[in-house]
Amino acid sequence: MSGEFNFIEKIRRRSSQSGQRPAVIPDLHLGIGDDTAVLGEESGRETLITVDLLVEEVDFRLDYAVPRWLGHKALAVSLSDIAAMGGDPRFALLTLGIPPSLISGERNGAEHFWEEFFDGYFELAERHGITLIGGDISAVPAQMTIDSIVMGHSRKGHAVRRSGAQQGQAIYVTGEIGAAATGLRLLFAGERANQSERCLVQQAIRAQLAPDPRVEFGRRLGRSGLVGAMIDVSDGLAQDLHHICNESRVGAVIDAGELPVAPCLDLLGLEQAQRLALALEGGEDYELLFTAARAVEDQLREMAGPDLRLSRIGTIVDQDSGNSAILIRQGDEHPHPLKVRGYDHFSR
Amino acid sequence: MSGEFNFIEKIRRRSSQSGQRPAVIPDLHLGIGDDTAVLGEESGRETLITVDLLVEEVDFRLDYAVPRWLGHKALAVSLSDIAAMGGDPRFALLTLGIPPSLISGERNGAEHFWEEFFDGYFELAERHGITLIGGDISAVPAQMTIDSIVMGHSRKGHAVRRSGAQQGQAIYVTGEIGAAATGLRLLFAGERANQSERCLVQQAIRAQLAPDPRVEFGRRLGRSGLVGAMIDVSDGLAQDLHHICNESRVGAVIDAGELPVAPCLDLLGLEQAQRLALALEGGEDYELLFTAARAVEDQLREMAGPDLRLSRIGTIVDQDSGNSAILIRQGDEHPHPLKVRGYDHFSR
Repeated sequence: MSGEFNFIEKIRRRSSQSGQRPAVIPDLHLGIGDDTAVLGEESGRETLITVDLLVEEVDFRLDYAVPRWLGHKALAVSLSDIAAMGGDPRFALLTLGIPPSLISGERNGAEHFWEEFFDGYFELAERHGITLIGGDISAVPAQMTIDSIVMGHSRKGHAVRRSGAQQGQAIYVTGEIGAAATGLRLLFAGERANQSERCLVQQAIRAQLAPDPRVEFGRRLGRSGLVGAMIDVSDGLAQDLHHICNESRVGAVIDAGELPVAPCLDLLGLEQAQRLALALEGGEDYELLFTAARAVEDQLREMAGPDLRLSRIGTIVDQDSGNSAILIRQGDEHPHPLKVRGYDHFSR
Repeated sequence: MSGEFNFIEKIRRRSSQSGQRPAVIPDLHLGIGDDTAVLGEESGRETLITVDLLVEEVDFRLDYAVPRWLGHKALAVSLSDIAAMGGDPRFALLTLGIPPSLISGERNGAEHFWEEFFDGYFELAERHGITLIGGDISAVPAQMTIDSIVMGHSRKGHAVRRSGAQQGQAIYVTGEIGAAATGLRLLFAGERANQSERCLVQQAIRAQLAPDPRVEFGRRLGRSGLVGAMIDVSDGLAQDLHHICNESRVGAVIDAGELPVAPCLDLLGLEQAQRLALALEGGEDYELLFTAARAVEDQLREMAGPDLRLSRIGTIVDQDSGNSAILIRQGDEHPHPLKVRGYDHFSR
């Protein structure tokens, strides 16, 4: 039949090849191919749902994109939201707005682009047990758009909200911060992905183009019931911590020296203050930022395992209504208010 | 704070003003404002989920759009998918890609556009008891994009699939067909919406710009358990019936004289054959097309009520593998194969 239905049929088949057979997936009663997908429900459980829009020229550029990594990232950003609720991601829907240059059948490499894109998408999906159950596609006149929807589960009452931070809890962040922002600057400066190299430049670019969401650790944190508040670092650590403080009506004091600033930031040759600002304000790290009692830190580290860095970066304090919600301490200095800046889609 | 967060906060408030208070909505455990929304589950129930992408210059044009109706349509197209499963729509998420001309704060009418847009969106949401629980927004360089997600429920095993049509069942369609396609032609020819007029031209334009999904009737059909297969007429009746035949492995015979062709098609001055083709191939009617035993027709008509037209347009027959799946009969003629054409996003 037509191009549009061929394309959908290809995705449907590709999805089945990934071992994503509806018949054997619990709770999947109907996947791609009808007016809606149909999922089973279970009492004592909650459904989590999130959606993320990625737009060409705003969130990515085709001149530096690695199609496989773009497919990976489309799913990764939404998996990260489920992880940030302590949930168990299960199902995905994907909407694609496809520009003329990427409509296949024109011998323009589009076929290859989509094969790579879906290789990246399904590779990540399989790794975490996610099944694609629906979506929509449309031609678009210009920029490519990707809308990524992920659904997951958590035990009733166990979803970790932004509003649960309490005075006295420690603040933790996984991995390193600032690498994705560094990667973006390097891409803008003309560097490109080169999968054969393992240098800092490539680490930064990979952090930007193919972030690894903390799915398994998020799931464990949710089940443990040990976490106060959690969010993923997508808008920049300062802004995301501000969201937690705001929703929890608390303040925070951060130790600058404890921030796990990615080593690749050194590539940019910034002065110390600018380097710290980029680490705090650069977005898209997709690390988990959460609060928990100091007393359970050993348990947290055991859950994180030997391969996932976990840094205690500060403490939740009483809200001081007269001042900024977040203070930052550098060395022995008196803490000073942290300016909260992050990414704003409308300010560009 | 920033423009992006202001915009989201406005939608959140607008959503609450609509009486959409999370505290009093069953199963809504957490709405807009965290990493994900959180919904309660219930055993014996199924979750239905659908997503529809609407793209400026492809699915609508701002030069003829009525902002209020665009907001209405964004939700309507997804409600229609839930109705087509016989489900009960409950929750919505909305993703907006906003072009520079519609970013507010520039005294360019954007503020007014979004007020009207959300008036239309929430008016329809309230009418059917839908709560907005999440979404995403981004600036886009050029065309506006809308991705509309709706979730609903049905009793376990009661979702009506495309694959349930059986030989001997009658084929029914609600309302009239071809009005939306007529409206689109009139808009392309320079006609515009004028809410004060009630003429055929305005009926056709309204069918295109502000379709009314058959939410309540769909819900009743699903609960009744009387329906074999169902789909909504979005790609054109011929193509949508083809989907049913394909998934159910059956054929169909249609009586041309029984098709509820919208009177406004006469405005286009087409010859009989072209008129019939437009009614069968013109998309976006958002009527329900379904199969059921003739024996329950009285019950179906009672469920439809006095205000919703219900037409029996043909019969499901055995699949004749040598021929086209769908035959059409005109008057006393021998039935002939129906060409299946509909809207293909990639063929333009």
